[in-house]
Amino acid sequence: MSNDLPQNTLELRSLVISDGTLELSLREAPVPVPAANEVLVRVEASPINPSDLGVLIAGADMSAATVAGTPERPTVTAPMGPGALAGLSARVDKALPVGNEGAGTVVAAGSSPAAQALLGKTVGIAGGGMYSQYRLVDASACLVLPEGATAKDGASSFVNPLTALGMLETMRSQGHSGLVHTAAASNLGQMLVKLCLADGIPLVNIVRTADQEQLLRSLGAVHVCNTSSPSFPADLVAALKETSATLAFDAIGGGTLTSQILNGMEEAANATAVVYSRYGSAVHKQVYIYGSLDTGPTVLTRSFGMAWGVGGWLLTPFLASAGAETLGRLRARVAAELTTTFASSYTREVSLAGMLRPDAFNSYLRRATGEKFLVTPQVVP
Amino acid sequence: MSNDLPQNTLELRSLVISDGTLELSLREAPVPVPAANEVLVRVEASPINPSDLGVLIAGADMSAATVAGTPERPTVTAPMGPGALAGLSARVDKALPVGNEGAGTVVAAGSSPAAQALLGKTVGIAGGGMYSQYRLVDASACLVLPEGATAKDGASSFVNPLTALGMLETMRSQGHSGLVHTAAASNLGQMLVKLCLADGIPLVNIVRTADQEQLLRSLGAVHVCNTSSPSFPADLVAALKETSATLAFDAIGGGTLTSQILNGMEEAANATAVVYSRYGSAVHKQVYIYGSLDTGPTVLTRSFGMAWGVGGWLLTPFLASAGAETLGRLRARVAAELTTTFASSYTREVSLAGMLRPDAFNSYLRRATGEKFLVTPQVVP
Repeated sequence: MSNDLPQNTLELRSLVISDGTLELSLREAPVPVPAANEVLVRVEASPINPSDLGVLIAGADMSAATVAGTPERPTVTAPMGPGALAGLSARVDKALPVGNEGAGTVVAAGSSPAAQALLGKTVGIAGGGMYSQYRLVDASACLVLPEGATAKDGASSFVNPLTALGMLETMRSQGHSGLVHTAAASNLGQMLVKLCLADGIPLVNIVRTADQEQLLRSLGAVHVCNTSSPSFPADLVAALKETSATLAFDAIGGGTLTSQILNGMEEAANATAVVYSRYGSAVHKQVYIYGSLDTGPTVLTRSFGMAWGVGGWLLTPFLASAGAETLGRLRARVAAELTTTFASSYTREVSLAGMLRPDAFNSYLRRATGEKFLVTPQVVP
Repeated sequence: MSNDLPQNTLELRSLVISDGTLELSLREAPVPVPAANEVLVRVEASPINPSDLGVLIAGADMSAATVAGTPERPTVTAPMGPGALAGLSARVDKALPVGNEGAGTVVAAGSSPAAQALLGKTVGIAGGGMYSQYRLVDASACLVLPEGATAKDGASSFVNPLTALGMLETMRSQGHSGLVHTAAASNLGQMLVKLCLADGIPLVNIVRTADQEQLLRSLGAVHVCNTSSPSFPADLVAALKETSATLAFDAIGGGTLTSQILNGMEEAANATAVVYSRYGSAVHKQVYIYGSLDTGPTVLTRSFGMAWGVGGWLLTPFLASAGAETLGRLRARVAAELTTTFASSYTREVSLAGMLRPDAFNSYLRRATGEKFLVTPQVVP
């Protein structure tokens, strides 16, 4: 263990109290000592992903949040909405660490050769609790970043890259040959554009603004449909006919877009049908909902025959079912293309304390496409 | 070919005319001659299933139907609703035969031993065009009814029995251990109650009236939830907890019941959870929509985590994917249990001409649970 390590590490914690209050605060904890196959990572960069916000906020009403404490140790308190405690019993009164992924420098290592080999390396890591100055992880969980890559380059080397690659794996394993992606201008969406271009996979990108369309076209995207355009319904069907895409990944969830995509796929499938079928086309049409930018109900107007499915899709169970060999292949591709295909961009950097300022959380809680926060735990406000 | 066969056979046809009119009528056609491996079946009984009504009516507005012609040869005309022609282009101006399944006597056979062996037998058949006095089918498509069984006993020996058995096969192949069924008091639902009792599979039956609940309990059903009862939400969750059923087959489709079932399954799965998961339980919850008693939108309030799916389920693709060996096993069980497990009951019998009388079609188009028509093509008129 290096002598220049501090004794304590600062960590962000999210606590749902049984009286119906959310409390976000920073806590000090002793810097842990690695076991034989573990390494200690000094976390230098960690993104705020939509998937982090659920653990962080737990459905509290942040418009009623108040901030107390000092600038270095702020404490945010917010009321849980009516009924928000339901389903949270397993986390009530436990201060949870937050932050799915991050990157930093290995500053201490256990005795195993695998752990020792990582000393001094810049690595990407995942597994939660990354909004922290130091994080202990298993040596095998580290993705060694390519020469010259910074912690900021590697901060988002798990969730978005593996999600994009997982979408392609899912497409291939389920026999589809093209993809549809909503909220397509996100960092993840941009990765998917580059991946599909590289792999020759037809991709229909659905965005909400002309600027987003322009951004994706500048990356080489061929099919971009803008929901704010009056021609969106026709554009979508035309793109589905041209691509024969029968699998969509939807980050929005609520509303009618899922249904519209399925109906468009059905229209595309029937465009060449010559025999009438009471049950619609036999082509299987699938939408996976992997995010919930709209938490309202999903409304399905079933004019898309009987060969269809809608379901949830999550990275963790996908990786579990994909197996170690596939995961190894995907991680190797992430490392090789970290600063090209899988490059992320951030619009704002905040310290751990900075995450708890209203101007910060009011911004990252909006989940606006194109806006992305990077947490820098080593910066002390 | 037997000499006492008539020269012509009477068939019901459904014609969507390009001017936006539906026309239902009876047509005479020459009685066909079997090829080597074919048999000619004198159709004596054929049910009107919900799955027949789509081909028969094609979305026309039957409340505005008019009947012309003679009592022996009625012709029903009805306007197609606005937009109803969309998606029907492949059937416009083609007079389609109707009737998925039926039973009758083999009255002529081709030269092959398999065909000859069927002469004089009472058989169940499927494949469409059963609202007809004579139907040519491949010998291999015939299900020979057990000794003593009548054509009426065997009229429904395909769609409902194989659907019920297909639900159990799907449950087993997808790793579930219990079932939920909506519209559970139907003929199909009653078969499912008996099958699940015989096979030891926990089944949650969802019905709409106290009478239907009583009917299913008289068959031995353990879990029956009545949507018209004030305690339905609690009853459903309790039954899902007791059965751990994670697969539902829903005949209704529209509305919020699918969502309610998924949320109930999630509540049951979380009842024993000790570790908080932002994404809900890892237990996969699935609803297959196999009917559309409510053609309105399916509204999903996604409080059921991320491990879920909703999709269409149809008998024909299930049988195609199940393979010949499985189909043979299922058909053998249908034959063996035709008058017990798979017994159907009918509330009314009509001739081919009788199908086209307003008091008949106004009744069978309501698709009321517990009401079931049997067509008897040999009865004139």
